[in-house]
Amino acid sequence: MTLEKAVGVYVIAPTPFFPDATIDFVSIDRLVDAYRAAGATGLTVLGMMGEAAKLEVAEAEAVAERYIKRAEGLPVVVGVSAPGFASMRSLSRRAMDLGAAGVMIAPPPSLRTDDQIVGYYRNAVEAIGDDIPFVIQDFPLALGVVMTPEVIRRIVMDNPSCSMLKHEDWPGLEKISVLREYENRGSMRPISILCGNGGLFLDFEMSRGADGAMTGYAFPEMLVDVVNYARAGDFEAAHDIFDAHLPLVRYEQQPGVGLAVRKYVMKRRGLITSDTQRAPGGKLSSKAIDEIELLLRRLAIRDPRAVVAASAR
Amino acid sequence: MTLEKAVGVYVIAPTPFFPDATIDFVSIDRLVDAYRAAGATGLTVLGMMGEAAKLEVAEAEAVAERYIKRAEGLPVVVGVSAPGFASMRSLSRRAMDLGAAGVMIAPPPSLRTDDQIVGYYRNAVEAIGDDIPFVIQDFPLALGVVMTPEVIRRIVMDNPSCSMLKHEDWPGLEKISVLREYENRGSMRPISILCGNGGLFLDFEMSRGADGAMTGYAFPEMLVDVVNYARAGDFEAAHDIFDAHLPLVRYEQQPGVGLAVRKYVMKRRGLITSDTQRAPGGKLSSKAIDEIELLLRRLAIRDPRAVVAASAR
Amino acid sequence: MTLEKAVGVYVIAPTPFFPDATIDFVSIDRLVDAYRAAGATGLTVLGMMGEAAKLEVAEAEAVAERYIKRAEGLPVVVGVSAPGFASMRSLSRRAMDLGAAGVMIAPPPSLRTDDQIVGYYRNAVEAIGDDIPFVIQDFPLALGVVMTPEVIRRIVMDNPSCSMLKHEDWPGLEKISVLREYENRGSMRPISILCGNGGLFLDFEMSRGADGAMTGYAFPEMLVDVVNYARAGDFEAAHDIFDAHLPLVRYEQQPGVGLAVRKYVMKRRGLITSDTQRAPGGKLSSKAIDEIELLLRRLAIRDPRAVVAASAR
Amino acid sequence: MTLEKAVGVYVIAPTPFFPDATIDFVSIDRLVDAYRAAGATGLTVLGMMGEAAKLEVAEAEAVAERYIKRAEGLPVVVGVSAPGFASMRSLSRRAMDLGAAGVMIAPPPSLRTDDQIVGYYRNAVEAIGDDIPFVIQDFPLALGVVMTPEVIRRIVMDNPSCSMLKHEDWPGLEKISVLREYENRGSMRPISILCGNGGLFLDFEMSRGADGAMTGYAFPEMLVDVVNYARAGDFEAAHDIFDAHLPLVRYEQQPGVGLAVRKYVMKRRGLITSDTQRAPGGKLSSKAIDEIELLLRRLAIRDPRAVVAASAR
Repeated sequence: MTLEKAVGVYVIAPTPFFPDATIDFVSIDRLVDAYRAAGATGLTVLGMMGEAAKLEVAEAEAVAERYIKRAEGLPVVVGVSAPGFASMRSLSRRAMDLGAAGVMIAPPPSLRTDDQIVGYYRNAVEAIGDDIPFVIQDFPLALGVVMTPEVIRRIVMDNPSCSMLKHEDWPGLEKISVLREYENRGSMRPISILCGNGGLFLDFEMSRGADGAMTGYAFPEMLVDVVNYARAGDFEAAHDIFDAHLPLVRYEQQPGVGLAVRKYVMKRRGLITSDTQRAPGGKLSSKAIDEIELLLRRLAIRDPRAVVAASAR
Repeated sequence: MTLEKAVGVYVIAPTPFFPDATIDFVSIDRLVDAYRAAGATGLTVLGMMGEAAKLEVAEAEAVAERYIKRAEGLPVVVGVSAPGFASMRSLSRRAMDLGAAGVMIAPPPSLRTDDQIVGYYRNAVEAIGDDIPFVIQDFPLALGVVMTPEVIRRIVMDNPSCSMLKHEDWPGLEKISVLREYENRGSMRPISILCGNGGLFLDFEMSRGADGAMTGYAFPEMLVDVVNYARAGDFEAAHDIFDAHLPLVRYEQQPGVGLAVRKYVMKRRGLITSDTQRAPGGKLSSKAIDEIELLLRRLAIRDPRAVVAASAR
Repeated sequence: MTLEKAVGVYVIAPTPFFPDATIDFVSIDRLVDAYRAAGATGLTVLGMMGEAAKLEVAEAEAVAERYIKRAEGLPVVVGVSAPGFASMRSLSRRAMDLGAAGVMIAPPPSLRTDDQIVGYYRNAVEAIGDDIPFVIQDFPLALGVVMTPEVIRRIVMDNPSCSMLKHEDWPGLEKISVLREYENRGSMRPISILCGNGGLFLDFEMSRGADGAMTGYAFPEMLVDVVNYARAGDFEAAHDIFDAHLPLVRYEQQPGVGLAVRKYVMKRRGLITSDTQRAPGGKLSSKAIDEIELLLRRLAIRDPRAVVAASAR
Repeated sequence: MTLEKAVGVYVIAPTPFFPDATIDFVSIDRLVDAYRAAGATGLTVLGMMGEAAKLEVAEAEAVAERYIKRAEGLPVVVGVSAPGFASMRSLSRRAMDLGAAGVMIAPPPSLRTDDQIVGYYRNAVEAIGDDIPFVIQDFPLALGVVMTPEVIRRIVMDNPSCSMLKHEDWPGLEKISVLREYENRGSMRPISILCGNGGLFLDFEMSRGADGAMTGYAFPEMLVDVVNYARAGDFEAAHDIFDAHLPLVRYEQQPGVGLAVRKYVMKRRGLITSDTQRAPGGKLSSKAIDEIELLLRRLAIRDPRAVVAASAR
């Protein structure tokens, strides 16, 4: 299957570390198995929430390799955003050699005008080669780069290897509608649109026409449910399960500490051995942990899959 | 009552316009009455969500005057943020003459260092006079100015007229804990901390020690409930009502279109005559309106106060 | 004469204050006379360097009025940039009633995409009326808004009242060439291009095809010389006088303290009574003053007009 | 000699490329010899103007190695700024193994508060080890991070391995005075202060007490002259040679195209084989080249060392 037809949930996977900040490869295997069991249709590794910038080149390649190997059958997108094209090229070529389905490229924060953004992706494709399917990461809140639908259309039409949009504009619902309208009118080649932003708007993103999610909530089961219900046309069921998780989704989406929350819950679920982040990383206070535990307890009432063993912390 | 002891909900009030963009003063009266009935303990006018920047000076004064007059008994905070101190001074003096309880000052986006921020508030107090109680607006997401707890402490301790923090850092829960700890240890004079951010974290902000909310959700009843339950120690009840509203709270907090959502719901509730915004303003597509109606319908199941008449749109 | 045909030097005029920060209207008259004597072909008032944001509305109108009155015969452009369109409209209408030749509008720093910038000017024209000639201020270094030549072309072509570009992109020489090429090919209506940035590139801006300068160096005589020599085709003479002044031009163009330098030199030349700025304003240390005096002394050797009386400071 | 006692000119060295964008190691040798002949007291490689971000890790190490080897006797500072600490550590250790005198670290653009900046350098030192002398790069115009003198003092006092400040705040003259005052009063350990910003204020930076320059003008001879004259107390001679070069200095300091200008002149001087930059890089139009040639011709009249052979372009 090619990336531009992707549907479902591509889970943004973290990079698990041991308390000494070395990479925990065994937890990678466990995560992949859990994502598969949860119904994920793909994985995305070495994104921002994968702490990619904190890895050395050899480490990044090792993480990608382990994920791809274990994922066998599940397509894996590898984040290759880098300050320069030489590094982007070498990681991209390496990722594809390892069996990646494609790469994801975020624009550098310095870009301002429409032409600068379009030109950046043109240069990136020249650098990595036009044979590698790539994903546009559209994340203005974190990157400060605002892409109009027209800019996305230009990138898609200029670059046949552009296969997917990781949509995390905020607000972004109208953008999905406009892009789908472009496709319907034939002015833009169809691509896959998977949504990020921690899933905070996934319920409506689906009814606007998104193909699924590419994000990293600690209970990917919920993301899978929302996408599947919505794709089946049962939007009320989608909202029901979404609303049950929303208090935690919202808590996990806090900039700076969000990954700490996510890793904490993953550790509580037994998915990773330690919730260690490499520096600089958000830390959870004891009050924050109490809040997460409260949210887990309340969530478990509405979604039994969220029951976790009493914490021994 | 003085501002530094304020508790409860100071509702961020919009400026209602007729479809021709003239000010709808009658809706101001209606809003004040509704806020009072909902249990608000104060009002804040001419903030960002009050479209203050879109008003001429005389209009701004007229809006403040109408709100203050109708609010009789309810303290009114007036936003006086301005590109220059001369305008800030004249609006501040005028607001106090009209009976305002204090003024709110946001830092200009150009500030970077700790000293620049502290110096700005010192200059502002010199400009408006040290006899006017003022509120710090701490809103990094919108303003790009990041204040450490220590910077807030310095502003509070340098300026006896500093009475309140409108807290809308994001994430911001730890900041509340740190500020309360300063107060407990006696290193910071106690002030009122009211929380913004559309209420998206009000449940936990209260358990962290906030005194209430200063924000502008279309159902201020919920904000009042959460604050009152929390202040009474019944956090489960606070979470229950909060969670019921969270899907709409989240939808209303979208940057750019949030005010359009809020005004639409207010119009649907009969609180304002028109949901017109002055340009530039977010517009709701028909799909967005469908989404809001769906959220209202689902909310009404969990909170009967949210029942609104079927839309005749 | 209409603004779109303007050539020469439109001096960016400061707002002179007495040491108590009240407006010094007599110095305004003196400045106008000096600018006229120096060969200025127009004036621009209430710009950033005119400390416009620090004035109350009535003060701003009074400053504009005084400048326009004294300038009789010299066209005056009035800066009307404002956080909202209502204030922009009222100041624009007032300025034109007073006899202004046009208004200048800077984009707000929040704008990002090409369409947002174009849309902003469309909204501004709707607000002020399409009968008022206006100047685009293109100043990315200060405003963070980057306009491509194509965006400028769109604004010009969408709005018949767009008459001039205050060009202060940095770097910006290629932009002038591209815009002049648009005009030559007939794809953009000709407008006047006057250059800012403290004149730091005026020598080459003229050879790229600019019509002159709109900036505010303490010796406008130099700006006039460079423009006149260049327009006469004597580029070597233009460079000679430019190079003589460049050490001071460079010193005066420092962000933050530049206006303090300019006002200091103007006071030393007897053009204004005091170099007071309203807060917040850059301050000159005694070392900085020594540096300026050294620059003046060295400049006077190369340009006798720069001789100022020995300082009695 | 240790870095904290460094004086003179540490030239910011470019990375020369052949037209096919491969690294031109022979030109590295030629550059080192020319810098030594010009009187440089040190070199800095892999900085922004060294296109460090466009190199792969192995390439960066190879460039550093070649520079260090050829520089024998001249201390070489290696830029190690990186999005993550793991990469920063490995490049730092490698550079020191190769014989570097120290490393240079720029703060990431996301930092805002004083504590964030101080904390970042603490984390960086933890990552690279406290045995590696490091240089703070203070460059707000490019990085958006504003460091007060107090923040620099904190970094210096917290980290014994902090040895030097690459000063390129803008404006920045007062900052030098304040830091030297800290040292004189004994509240800050003395470090070396070398100035950047393309040398645009080197004349006055020296009289403010800077120890020299760390920047990359195409005629490093001028930087050496200014520093030497100033250190010998002959400030008039320093200004004379500085002013002669200022028109070109100013032209070369344009953001975005500055490096293209510098490399062009270096190629014209025979220092590098090609002025190729890796993408993305500024390009010179034929008009820009004419302007540079004009500047070179005019400069040669005042400084005979600037005579270059007639261009055969």
